[in-house]
Amino acid sequence: MEVLVLIFINKGDAKMDKLLERLVKENEYLVQYGKVADYIPALKSANPNDIGICIMDIEGNLYSSGDYEKKFTIQSISKVLSLMIAIVDKGEEKVFKKVGMEPTDESFNSLYKLDLPYGDKPSNPMINSGAILTTSLINGKGEEKFNRFLEIIRKITQDDNINYNEEVFLSEKRTGDKNRSIAYLLKNKNLIEEDVENILDAYFKQCSIEVNCIDLAKIGIFLANKCKIPNTEEVLCNEEIGTLVTALMTTCGMYNFSGEYAVKVGIPSKSGVAGGILGVVPGRFGIGVYGPALDKHGNSIAGYGMLKGLSKELGLSIFN
Amino acid sequence: MEVLVLIFINKGDAKMDKLLERLVKENEYLVQYGKVADYIPALKSANPNDIGICIMDIEGNLYSSGDYEKKFTIQSISKVLSLMIAIVDKGEEKVFKKVGMEPTDESFNSLYKLDLPYGDKPSNPMINSGAILTTSLINGKGEEKFNRFLEIIRKITQDDNINYNEEVFLSEKRTGDKNRSIAYLLKNKNLIEEDVENILDAYFKQCSIEVNCIDLAKIGIFLANKCKIPNTEEVLCNEEIGTLVTALMTTCGMYNFSGEYAVKVGIPSKSGVAGGILGVVPGRFGIGVYGPALDKHGNSIAGYGMLKGLSKELGLSIFN
Amino acid sequence: MEVLVLIFINKGDAKMDKLLERLVKENEYLVQYGKVADYIPALKSANPNDIGICIMDIEGNLYSSGDYEKKFTIQSISKVLSLMIAIVDKGEEKVFKKVGMEPTDESFNSLYKLDLPYGDKPSNPMINSGAILTTSLINGKGEEKFNRFLEIIRKITQDDNINYNEEVFLSEKRTGDKNRSIAYLLKNKNLIEEDVENILDAYFKQCSIEVNCIDLAKIGIFLANKCKIPNTEEVLCNEEIGTLVTALMTTCGMYNFSGEYAVKVGIPSKSGVAGGILGVVPGRFGIGVYGPALDKHGNSIAGYGMLKGLSKELGLSIFN
Amino acid sequence: MEVLVLIFINKGDAKMDKLLERLVKENEYLVQYGKVADYIPALKSANPNDIGICIMDIEGNLYSSGDYEKKFTIQSISKVLSLMIAIVDKGEEKVFKKVGMEPTDESFNSLYKLDLPYGDKPSNPMINSGAILTTSLINGKGEEKFNRFLEIIRKITQDDNINYNEEVFLSEKRTGDKNRSIAYLLKNKNLIEEDVENILDAYFKQCSIEVNCIDLAKIGIFLANKCKIPNTEEVLCNEEIGTLVTALMTTCGMYNFSGEYAVKVGIPSKSGVAGGILGVVPGRFGIGVYGPALDKHGNSIAGYGMLKGLSKELGLSIFN
Repeated sequence: MEVLVLIFINKGDAKMDKLLERLVKENEYLVQYGKVADYIPALKSANPNDIGICIMDIEGNLYSSGDYEKKFTIQSISKVLSLMIAIVDKGEEKVFKKVGMEPTDESFNSLYKLDLPYGDKPSNPMINSGAILTTSLINGKGEEKFNRFLEIIRKITQDDNINYNEEVFLSEKRTGDKNRSIAYLLKNKNLIEEDVENILDAYFKQCSIEVNCIDLAKIGIFLANKCKIPNTEEVLCNEEIGTLVTALMTTCGMYNFSGEYAVKVGIPSKSGVAGGILGVVPGRFGIGVYGPALDKHGNSIAGYGMLKGLSKELGLSIFN
Repeated sequence: MEVLVLIFINKGDAKMDKLLERLVKENEYLVQYGKVADYIPALKSANPNDIGICIMDIEGNLYSSGDYEKKFTIQSISKVLSLMIAIVDKGEEKVFKKVGMEPTDESFNSLYKLDLPYGDKPSNPMINSGAILTTSLINGKGEEKFNRFLEIIRKITQDDNINYNEEVFLSEKRTGDKNRSIAYLLKNKNLIEEDVENILDAYFKQCSIEVNCIDLAKIGIFLANKCKIPNTEEVLCNEEIGTLVTALMTTCGMYNFSGEYAVKVGIPSKSGVAGGILGVVPGRFGIGVYGPALDKHGNSIAGYGMLKGLSKELGLSIFN
Repeated sequence: MEVLVLIFINKGDAKMDKLLERLVKENEYLVQYGKVADYIPALKSANPNDIGICIMDIEGNLYSSGDYEKKFTIQSISKVLSLMIAIVDKGEEKVFKKVGMEPTDESFNSLYKLDLPYGDKPSNPMINSGAILTTSLINGKGEEKFNRFLEIIRKITQDDNINYNEEVFLSEKRTGDKNRSIAYLLKNKNLIEEDVENILDAYFKQCSIEVNCIDLAKIGIFLANKCKIPNTEEVLCNEEIGTLVTALMTTCGMYNFSGEYAVKVGIPSKSGVAGGILGVVPGRFGIGVYGPALDKHGNSIAGYGMLKGLSKELGLSIFN
Repeated sequence: MEVLVLIFINKGDAKMDKLLERLVKENEYLVQYGKVADYIPALKSANPNDIGICIMDIEGNLYSSGDYEKKFTIQSISKVLSLMIAIVDKGEEKVFKKVGMEPTDESFNSLYKLDLPYGDKPSNPMINSGAILTTSLINGKGEEKFNRFLEIIRKITQDDNINYNEEVFLSEKRTGDKNRSIAYLLKNKNLIEEDVENILDAYFKQCSIEVNCIDLAKIGIFLANKCKIPNTEEVLCNEEIGTLVTALMTTCGMYNFSGEYAVKVGIPSKSGVAGGILGVVPGRFGIGVYGPALDKHGNSIAGYGMLKGLSKELGLSIFN
């Protein structure tokens, strides 16, 4: 199928930049209906009017518009990578003995299902309980887990300057009692073994990593293109891991809006509470969008608008 | 993209028949690990060793192997069509005011979420509560609802002999107390208005419609090909409805195995308790498989095996 | 202990009438903060300002004040008697194989716990699911169940004019979809065997029986005095059944307010949505109060006030 | 009523000792059907054959039999005292703003209800979440909370040697991840303010206090007798607090067996996982029983047997 895609892109370059510009314009009015996350000061200070988008194709070409270079913390989008690294490090079987693959109508930071008599493991790796668990399965102890995460994200984005925001990390750590409650419940259920605070440190740090739309687009094309590091021939891991992650993003990636998002957009995506959305069009594109004003589901309101428009214009939905 | 597909199929004809034969052979051993549904006598009498598959491409070519002509009741696969007809008849907005689009970890015949203080509507149209609801939204009163359903499925399959199995219908009706409980709860919540027994009659009848793998393949290609009646140029409804249905099949179609099925197979599918599975490869194939021996999730155990194999062989997962 | 009680009452006669008069006066202002049940027209038409109380001691003396002769439907207070009759008819063991004895924080008409994977029977006989179940265990088929119920309540109250209100019954039946949902779920779980509509007819009829405060006081003293028919020496059933019912009224009788009610009043009680409350002071008093204006828990707001006052004045709490 | 009771006891002395001896004999066979708690080594080492009982009347007379002097940790029975002290220190209103009074069918260490969208506070102070909360409301910071608890229990039992078992405390602390999960959830919901580990230290220490049946009997008669320190005229607190605590023991004190226990025994009681049960017969007796072999509900199996027998023999049920 690559031939077809190639043709499309060759004739699309200029058009694509135009399209992204138009999408930013058409969706920037949405920010007024959203609300910046305010549970920690560092997030609250984001500019609600920011809106940006960046796309990378499998050739490595970049298209972008708006505030696509603005840095923000990756937050829940990191769940995609901690899942991937856990599988690389421990194997699919071992990971999914401790976390499910099934979507849930629990909220992202819920723990009640785990506490029901028949609750044996987190429903999936895209909710907090599942992600704390995958982080716990990354190789290494204490600091090493986070260092490994950082190493991988730097490798995929080919950018050694990527790092976490200390202020956000400390805020998350200070206010992270719900995640602490989840982690101790996981420990109580023998699903995590290491010291809870160490795992939470790794988790809060990975959530506090700063990226921009370009970085997300690179992560996206990496997943869309058989786990190849963008602009190289290096394959980081088995391509089946990319497929697995992409499937789970589709069924579970957009909080309690995943089902409707699949219908309306149809691009496997994962959002974060700082306003980023990572999109993967298998075999074709990696997408990064940003817009810190969130809708009631916790997804970037303008980001959602841009992705919906993009999907429609280019026919990117995997469902048609 | 049609050109590419065409080429593929032109060179694939003979290979495809061979492939299906091989898939049947390779997966027939699985039936010993499954169990035929036994909650009504009519289902219990199915032959657990049956296994069949049929594929239709967008050109209308048919490929098949095994017991693909054997008739079985459509059961939960009918949910796909009642959703579609409800949207055609009442519009997307009106339908989704009364049923959600979100996957759930409820079991298919669960009702407890609806009874929680914040339970306002069924999670999605692929669980029983959601499907009873979409059936209630099909145009017509009493008998008319089912007649409309029958008319549509006959149109799509181009087969006027399709009908429901009276014995199965009466069994479902007699033993359908859980569905009755669900329906009265929906009525209590003002989500359905008409007489409950009338709606249940329509629902039980649509579940009792007899089809074979060919019929399912036709329904599949109809959804995969912009809602065009196979082998005609007639478009039954807006192609966006096909996309919507396909997306919901992906996130919610395989009971509490939908997430893992997306990972392992990646073909939008809907299963039924009589052993059928309907598969949709957008823009390419409609698939029907049959095998009444079920796994613990209620999905055809050999059917799942064949679809997994098929997806791998032809690279059909929408996630890679 | 009877001697002591006797002394108390002998010197208390005049005082008691005065006390009840005062309690009515002191609590009638509360009706403005309550709300008459409005889910059926027949209940909605009650006079929210009505307030009455009647007490019977074990000597058979009656004390009363306010609208104590006004008739209202017994509603959930009937659960006390259907539990008793079910035990008389089927034995304690058989009854509690199908319904629990444990209080719940479910609401009275909830069914969700029953639908959880580990939900095997209604929590207790004071919520609707448990009461529909005990009604199903009363001897007789169809009409006979209700006739038996009627016979028993007439015997206890020594009043052959007691009957059900046809209008209320028909209203309950017409709007009783939640109870219907519950009953079909019970049937689905093989907890009830007979025809659901027959059982519901018996249940709705028993809820529609008209009583006044005197009738409730008689039922109360019957339970308080070893199941002796008031003013006779006839014992209707084993006194242990009276103890059992009184204990369950205490832990489960006042909806989701049972715990606080035990603390604040300490008189084993059961309320009904029409505004009645039945009180039992073991070995001493039977109490009936009426006041159709309900608080947010569904209990008579003025009735609660009077019972709280009465308990304090006479030191009736079983907990001190 | 005191006169009557006095008479009863005066003629009962010798009989009472005999009765307790008989109860021990008749119930010691039960230990074989129970199981000693084994979640921490210190509990596992208890002798499953131990069985003891002690009763104190309001005159201060003591009756006892069996292993009534054996020391064991108070465990969940401490919830009764932390509730009382929290009310003394902060007032009823402030306490019950943060914890409910309603019985629940949650298990004692459940937290799921708290995590439901409408879960605003622990159901009652007799489950772990509620008790951690009342402990947090005891006056003082850090060590001071526990010191206050210790001071009160020493005062009531008039025994300055009462102290906690360091080994049990450290075990509870080390393995207490479920309680830690609960505490962080309470913190996340702003129900507790102080440092979680400090509160848990106080909670684990109070659970690790060593008592024997005599101590429990003294606590029992204290609650049964208007909060008077046994054998003195000193009133520790408002008698209404005693009534409140006694009522909550009745509706919530025996884990998920509270409802049935009320029916079968009818003595307000609170059990602990080390095998103790505290019983309160209002106005008459305080009871302490011990037997570390537990039934499936977590209550002392022989202790339950003795209390049931005692209630029957002396007619102690508050419900008849």
